[in-house]
Amino acid sequence: MKQARESKISSTSSLYPEFLVKIINKKLQDYLQSYNKLPGILKESISYSIQNGGKRFRPVLCMVTAGSLGGRVDIALPTACAIELIHTYSLIHDDLPSIDNDDYRRGKATCHRVFGEDIAILTGDALFAESFNLILEHQYCKPGKKIELIKEIAKASGAEGMVAGQIVDVFYTGKKITKKILEYMHENKTGKLIIAAVRCGAIIADASGGLLEKLTLYGKNIGLAFQITDDLLDLESSIESAGKTTGKDIILCKNTYPSMYGIEKSRKIAEEKINESINIVKSLDIESEWLVKIAKFLLKRNK
Amino acid sequence: MKQARESKISSTSSLYPEFLVKIINKKLQDYLQSYNKLPGILKESISYSIQNGGKRFRPVLCMVTAGSLGGRVDIALPTACAIELIHTYSLIHDDLPSIDNDDYRRGKATCHRVFGEDIAILTGDALFAESFNLILEHQYCKPGKKIELIKEIAKASGAEGMVAGQIVDVFYTGKKITKKILEYMHENKTGKLIIAAVRCGAIIADASGGLLEKLTLYGKNIGLAFQITDDLLDLESSIESAGKTTGKDIILCKNTYPSMYGIEKSRKIAEEKINESINIVKSLDIESEWLVKIAKFLLKRNK
Repeated sequence: MKQARESKISSTSSLYPEFLVKIINKKLQDYLQSYNKLPGILKESISYSIQNGGKRFRPVLCMVTAGSLGGRVDIALPTACAIELIHTYSLIHDDLPSIDNDDYRRGKATCHRVFGEDIAILTGDALFAESFNLILEHQYCKPGKKIELIKEIAKASGAEGMVAGQIVDVFYTGKKITKKILEYMHENKTGKLIIAAVRCGAIIADASGGLLEKLTLYGKNIGLAFQITDDLLDLESSIESAGKTTGKDIILCKNTYPSMYGIEKSRKIAEEKINESINIVKSLDIESEWLVKIAKFLLKRNK
Repeated sequence: MKQARESKISSTSSLYPEFLVKIINKKLQDYLQSYNKLPGILKESISYSIQNGGKRFRPVLCMVTAGSLGGRVDIALPTACAIELIHTYSLIHDDLPSIDNDDYRRGKATCHRVFGEDIAILTGDALFAESFNLILEHQYCKPGKKIELIKEIAKASGAEGMVAGQIVDVFYTGKKITKKILEYMHENKTGKLIIAAVRCGAIIADASGGLLEKLTLYGKNIGLAFQITDDLLDLESSIESAGKTTGKDIILCKNTYPSMYGIEKSRKIAEEKINESINIVKSLDIESEWLVKIAKFLLKRNK
């Protein structure tokens, strides 16, 4: 009954993304509350980490993709939330003292600053496992499709995905790298999970192979644009508007698009990627309106 | 052809477990070599971490369980290796300076001592994701069964499994705890993955629900015995024979069975658990010989 009510919110409403964020936040809380055998301190640290006022970019993208292909957006909700858990875990680990050593994230003290480094590492580990449990327990679909979804997420976050990008990032920090390595780093560190969000939404909505390929390309373009705008925000924003420590890339001698190409060229590359992504989805026989809006949002975002 | 040859090694041979360790080690290497898009430093750190001369207790247990139920042991090999990857990841994270701060593991310098803390955290993360990829890509079985296997592993390692036990361990280190909390800690930290190894082997060999329940109880008993003997080894072994820093539990004021019950009582509890586990499998209509031998081995192990 509740689901039926939720699904009535139309994608033509301008409140559509805000509505999706609301149901994602609610669902993440519901899942957490359903746990009753986990230690109190872990429940606290998970709760703290998932209630972070984040944009929920990846889960919204996943649900919007499913909706754009004619699927009911709420059917993609468990997988969308699972992807957000993976993202949250990766932020907790990235922020650790031995990696990016960040004190603030989304305007709040980072997990290790509040709970200690040991609990933060283990909270990340728990969220990673729980993202799989979430799909396994709650995603409504046939076993074959469920395996496809889990495969997307495990591949995107593994040794040839998100972790690969992160390893390259820490390994080459302070060292000069080629444009090819920079691209590999961004494609894996940020791109793969964003692509997975798009692909999972499409898989849930029964996309054909050809359509899936095109949407993968859309995801790849917005993924790169997302990381470039992230790098630009680090350079140009205040801690208040970005919600995290800014200017750290320069201090840490991080390899970024602005450090490789300069600010203007980086912004131009991001614009090109966004235009490319828009052209791709506009050429498809789908309801592309919100996929276009999401792409455009990346150029305007301030956090 | 090769698989057929491997499966000819009979479980009646006294070399059976050594043979299993050999094919597990070989397979882990094969999987790693099949990766071609991961950064060199990650390949190195994964290779270093999986070539550690470990007992391969969990994967052997998984394969032996499948064999005891009449299944071909080599069919369980991918899942067995996946469980070893989870175990390896958990050791890397446990050894980190902010958790157990261990310099040695299985006679070698720990991952963070060789590659740095950042790479070690990320290597653990990568292994976790890859354990799922390994089952998804290589485990031969129907989709429904594959989902069951992934569920076993994700649940065993998640917020109400291995991580829960580990969180309780770090949270209560140096503080007095009840016997109930000690049991919860051990059951989750060590027990759940050992139980999952048994259950996965049984699922692969098509165990009925009743049989699965009995084997779960077997796993629970040997899991607890395993952790108690681990605690005793930490107290009584030299670094040379244990292959890791010993005596650390006392220095760190860890809560262990010996610290709660004393050495003699702890040994007695371990013996009781082993006897219970042996009685369980002997009462079943299966080839219980090696499950009994594995249980007995736990009381004699010196590393």
